[in-house]
Amino acid sequence: MKYVFGVDIGGTTVKMGLFNDATELIEKWEIPTDKTDSGKKIIPDVCGSIKNKMGEKGISEEDVAGVGAGAPGAVDDKGMMPGGAVNLGWGPLNLKELMEKELPGIKIVAANDANVAAFGEMIAGGGKGYENVVAVTLGTGVGGGIILGGKLLAGSTGAAGEIGHMKVDDEETEKCNCGHAGCLEQYASATGIARLARKRLAKDDKASSLRSAETLDAKAVFDAVKEGDEVATEVAKEFGRYLGKGLATIADVVNPEIFVIGGGVSKAGDVLLEFVEPEFVNTAFPPCKGAKFALAKLGNDAGIYGCAGMVLS
Amino acid sequence: MKYVFGVDIGGTTVKMGLFNDATELIEKWEIPTDKTDSGKKIIPDVCGSIKNKMGEKGISEEDVAGVGAGAPGAVDDKGMMPGGAVNLGWGPLNLKELMEKELPGIKIVAANDANVAAFGEMIAGGGKGYENVVAVTLGTGVGGGIILGGKLLAGSTGAAGEIGHMKVDDEETEKCNCGHAGCLEQYASATGIARLARKRLAKDDKASSLRSAETLDAKAVFDAVKEGDEVATEVAKEFGRYLGKGLATIADVVNPEIFVIGGGVSKAGDVLLEFVEPEFVNTAFPPCKGAKFALAKLGNDAGIYGCAGMVLS
Repeated sequence: MKYVFGVDIGGTTVKMGLFNDATELIEKWEIPTDKTDSGKKIIPDVCGSIKNKMGEKGISEEDVAGVGAGAPGAVDDKGMMPGGAVNLGWGPLNLKELMEKELPGIKIVAANDANVAAFGEMIAGGGKGYENVVAVTLGTGVGGGIILGGKLLAGSTGAAGEIGHMKVDDEETEKCNCGHAGCLEQYASATGIARLARKRLAKDDKASSLRSAETLDAKAVFDAVKEGDEVATEVAKEFGRYLGKGLATIADVVNPEIFVIGGGVSKAGDVLLEFVEPEFVNTAFPPCKGAKFALAKLGNDAGIYGCAGMVLS
Repeated sequence: MKYVFGVDIGGTTVKMGLFNDATELIEKWEIPTDKTDSGKKIIPDVCGSIKNKMGEKGISEEDVAGVGAGAPGAVDDKGMMPGGAVNLGWGPLNLKELMEKELPGIKIVAANDANVAAFGEMIAGGGKGYENVVAVTLGTGVGGGIILGGKLLAGSTGAAGEIGHMKVDDEETEKCNCGHAGCLEQYASATGIARLARKRLAKDDKASSLRSAETLDAKAVFDAVKEGDEVATEVAKEFGRYLGKGLATIADVVNPEIFVIGGGVSKAGDVLLEFVEPEFVNTAFPPCKGAKFALAKLGNDAGIYGCAGMVLS
């Protein structure tokens, strides 16, 4: 048996996992992300933690099939991050090569964190059993990962699946963080749903439990929907219209078998899909509208599963 | 040296090509498409023509690396056409298997015609030298083909790259042929450009050479643009806004290196790109906006080149 390490580098912590070569999780742990000095210590810290774990478990280099790493930025198929990683303090660097220097003799695979999470959901989560999967992460922003024929799609500059910034509304006047306006992220992220709710509440005085919500966030909206709140339902419908339309466009381009919806917003559960699927079916080109929908299952572990899976694929 | 046949099955004629194994065209010819009796004779006719050519040239089965076939309908990666091909009179059939029966012992590869044309442009046309190519065909409709990592993307039901029916306008009231409204095809196809021109001319009485055009088609619009006609320029700008926005969305999803624009509309030449590229750059997510643009080069031969290329790839 060989071992595989999965490393999901986030802005606050690095999630790490030790797997066997059937992509079964043996142990997981976290180390803090040290962003001081432009994040220079992160890679040595990660590799040091892997070496420690190998020592602790008596695992030799020959026993390691490889290390997979995911990072929050575009990563091309050679491991280069041409735009660095803003949330880690990194400028442009080659993640794969830097890890190879720290872990000589061990195979390193590197990819974007949203993409590896998508891959994790395909091998062990909501997309298990499928080879053509689009994973959509509805968190603070909207991210995505595309797997075609069982392989992660990186794109020519590592930015494939960056679906949060697809333009879905030409009339939008408020700016997205990216500087454009009308991006999917402005309607379908946690932040976007809260924004839609604020705008809806300001429109008139219609009674709604959302008016007395402690925090007007995506969770409050979907909780109110489940209790039959009409205003919250209007907000959810608007969210579903944008996301369903956006996913229909993606289906027309890459024609996946299944969409796997994850991220904090997906904790609302199946009710979420009830607002997205009808709009998807109404908008997608007929040969593409048979795509299935599922919720993500691995939560924060999707990244380490995907990293390990990349090494083994 | 081995030989390869490329077969591009169209609604009126079947374009056929004999290539060497460096994908160099040795000879090309056409046979009529016999659509009588639900198009049952098309496959025997095509295979008969291949056998005749083999006899004429003294080519044995062992000398043939394979036959690639493109057909106007969705084709999955097993050669199945679940929706048949309306323009050929075909119901659901397996193109690859039917050709294998007629040409025993010869490798057959089958794909959608727009996809193989895209592949042809990658190996020998406007996308030569690139591995991540989105080819866009602006003809009567809008078609597309996506090549990632040098491989054609079929999609789970053979409908990847069906970009003509991406929704690009929520306000559209006129229906597209597909039954939806606001499809890219309604603005960026030859038919779509003529429609935009008719609508613009009806709006007011502003002088324009288009008012006296013999045929108000895409060619007339771009000819007038080249002569500085203001109304035609407005129409071209509207076309460019829709197509540029649509291609930006595609770039956000698959992050290609280059877009190759073909089809009848592309005969307008480089002036076309002047209306599309600025809108693309304004709309695409920054890491995706570096994609290049080129015009298709192979014209009607793109399909046979792509068919031959598929066999050899």
